[in-house]
Amino acid sequence: MTAAEHLYTIQLLGTGEDVRILDQVFLPHALEFRDLKTCEEAAEAIAVMRVRGAPLIGATAAAGLALAARVDASDEALAAAAAMLRATRPTAVNLGWALDRSMKHLLETPVEDRTRVAYQEAAAIIREDAMANEAIGQQGMELIRQLSQAKGGQPVNILTHCNAGWLATTHLGTATAPIYLAHREGIPIHVWVDETRPRSQGAALTAWELHRGGVPCTVIADNAGGLLMQRGQVDMVITGADRVAANGDVCNKIGTYLKALAARESEVPFCVAVPTSTIDADMPDGGAIPIEEREEREVLTATGLAGDGTVQTVVTAAEGVPGCNLAFDITPAELVTVLITECGLIKPGHAGDLVVSD
Amino acid sequence: MTAAEHLYTIQLLGTGEDVRILDQVFLPHALEFRDLKTCEEAAEAIAVMRVRGAPLIGATAAAGLALAARVDASDEALAAAAAMLRATRPTAVNLGWALDRSMKHLLETPVEDRTRVAYQEAAAIIREDAMANEAIGQQGMELIRQLSQAKGGQPVNILTHCNAGWLATTHLGTATAPIYLAHREGIPIHVWVDETRPRSQGAALTAWELHRGGVPCTVIADNAGGLLMQRGQVDMVITGADRVAANGDVCNKIGTYLKALAARESEVPFCVAVPTSTIDADMPDGGAIPIEEREEREVLTATGLAGDGTVQTVVTAAEGVPGCNLAFDITPAELVTVLITECGLIKPGHAGDLVVSD
Repeated sequence: MTAAEHLYTIQLLGTGEDVRILDQVFLPHALEFRDLKTCEEAAEAIAVMRVRGAPLIGATAAAGLALAARVDASDEALAAAAAMLRATRPTAVNLGWALDRSMKHLLETPVEDRTRVAYQEAAAIIREDAMANEAIGQQGMELIRQLSQAKGGQPVNILTHCNAGWLATTHLGTATAPIYLAHREGIPIHVWVDETRPRSQGAALTAWELHRGGVPCTVIADNAGGLLMQRGQVDMVITGADRVAANGDVCNKIGTYLKALAARESEVPFCVAVPTSTIDADMPDGGAIPIEEREEREVLTATGLAGDGTVQTVVTAAEGVPGCNLAFDITPAELVTVLITECGLIKPGHAGDLVVSD
Repeated sequence: MTAAEHLYTIQLLGTGEDVRILDQVFLPHALEFRDLKTCEEAAEAIAVMRVRGAPLIGATAAAGLALAARVDASDEALAAAAAMLRATRPTAVNLGWALDRSMKHLLETPVEDRTRVAYQEAAAIIREDAMANEAIGQQGMELIRQLSQAKGGQPVNILTHCNAGWLATTHLGTATAPIYLAHREGIPIHVWVDETRPRSQGAALTAWELHRGGVPCTVIADNAGGLLMQRGQVDMVITGADRVAANGDVCNKIGTYLKALAARESEVPFCVAVPTSTIDADMPDGGAIPIEEREEREVLTATGLAGDGTVQTVVTAAEGVPGCNLAFDITPAELVTVLITECGLIKPGHAGDLVVSD
């Protein structure tokens, strides 16, 4: 039913020693895969966003560590590999979480067994993320079902920002998991897809995967969500997150905060779907979460399919004007109606309670 | 000092019978002018946004009526011309205001004098808008000066949305008038320019004119303003408006409302610079203002300069997915700190008081 059943964002192939990713930089215009042969290639794939989305970044980092172990599984080499992978992107906590988890097991393992264990660990992270997607989907679908019943079966309009879809995870996505499961159950839904400038992950990735999965959806400018909410055309917002602080503050793609403000104003439930691996118990609130600042070029240009069928990047801004490209923002916990996790629904301000120390 | 001193968005040429516009669809990549010979050409120029911005639309409509009078100045012909011009764009009240004002004078004038009077009226609307720009600039500059003094001379960071610059008017702009005058006075300022998808008037037009005028500015994604305000990096917001209801509700480019919510949340003054011709005394509140819905193509594409130096439109969204393109939204009066008009500062909720019936 959904695309997630046919395509994989990341796969450990063969004997578990090769890593294949869906190379997302070519979407939605071409579907390409890429085999990662080295840890350096895994780091590059994360840095240039061939893979993106907090859960998928974590899985790819774990796979990258396995690729590193194949070459040199010494403590020093693995520490260097982990540091390289960790430095690729600063905001999503899953990256560090996956690396810490794998490294902990690896350093407890004899060197000769480490390559095998590293792949096992990467596979486990991938598998557990997929299971978390399913559980998040079940939890969130019940929210959609309630709204559907309250609307007498009229389509539930869901707004989402950026891509927290199956492309951002290893299975059904986080924000999209409830959407895919509701669609599969026959609950009428329609999704407003925020374009999500500057990289347009909404228009390019979320719209692509929802359309491919048969879910009715409409692309809107990032500017439009407020008016739609004022008009009663949004029944709920579901986004993912790159990191949730212990107090429930949500760090997600830039622009999420503006939608949360509008949702509160129009009394629209604002839901954040995350695996618990995205909750950072060490971060008391959102203020200290590092916000990635990317190159200005992304803000000053747009990339898409030109009339001649080639993918081109065009300069949209006036020549000589600088751009500022902050990639994430912080939505205070009080604006979040509920966190949808694989362990259940969490009310904002209580995210820390759910984190199980290991 | 500013570009407004050298270029004109609209001019009545020669004996006042020709109309020349700066054709804004080619900006920022090329500076082209276009002579409008007929009322139909004036209507087309408004409809496809060769000219845009509430005050400039009004001026162009008045000029279009003069072009119509040259051909046939009968009551019926002028009424048909006015109807054609009025139908081009629904949201900006200045369009109807300028047409009503000109038509009232024309119908009181003998047919043989109507062409002359129509051009006089268009010239008066252009001149008065320029004077209003100056007066708005003076009023708004004092607000900037106060912020500058409060910051001990540190640059005042002003965020603006869309283009309410000199390109949207006949002289200094509305939102930009205080900015240009402050810059001329030597008050240190920096402008955050919202890109303003889907047509990118911020990145393409506002950034172009500010940069050309020597005003420090930075282009940001429409998603970024909330975070910048949370971080204290925005001292005030100034936007224009397409129509202000009698209660002070502001209809402006889609996305304005989201910035107003963020401004209130971070206690940043949210100022709307408008000539009083933009205030619609017949509209009790924003709820009934018609919101233009434009073609989905604008949301699904982006236009800019390709690597080969040609201007190209590229498809940014996934194939087959529809788009929704609502062009304006409503910012409730309670979110507006002050309206900056040529008649003075108006507190929200009291806009109607200022409208002088004629």
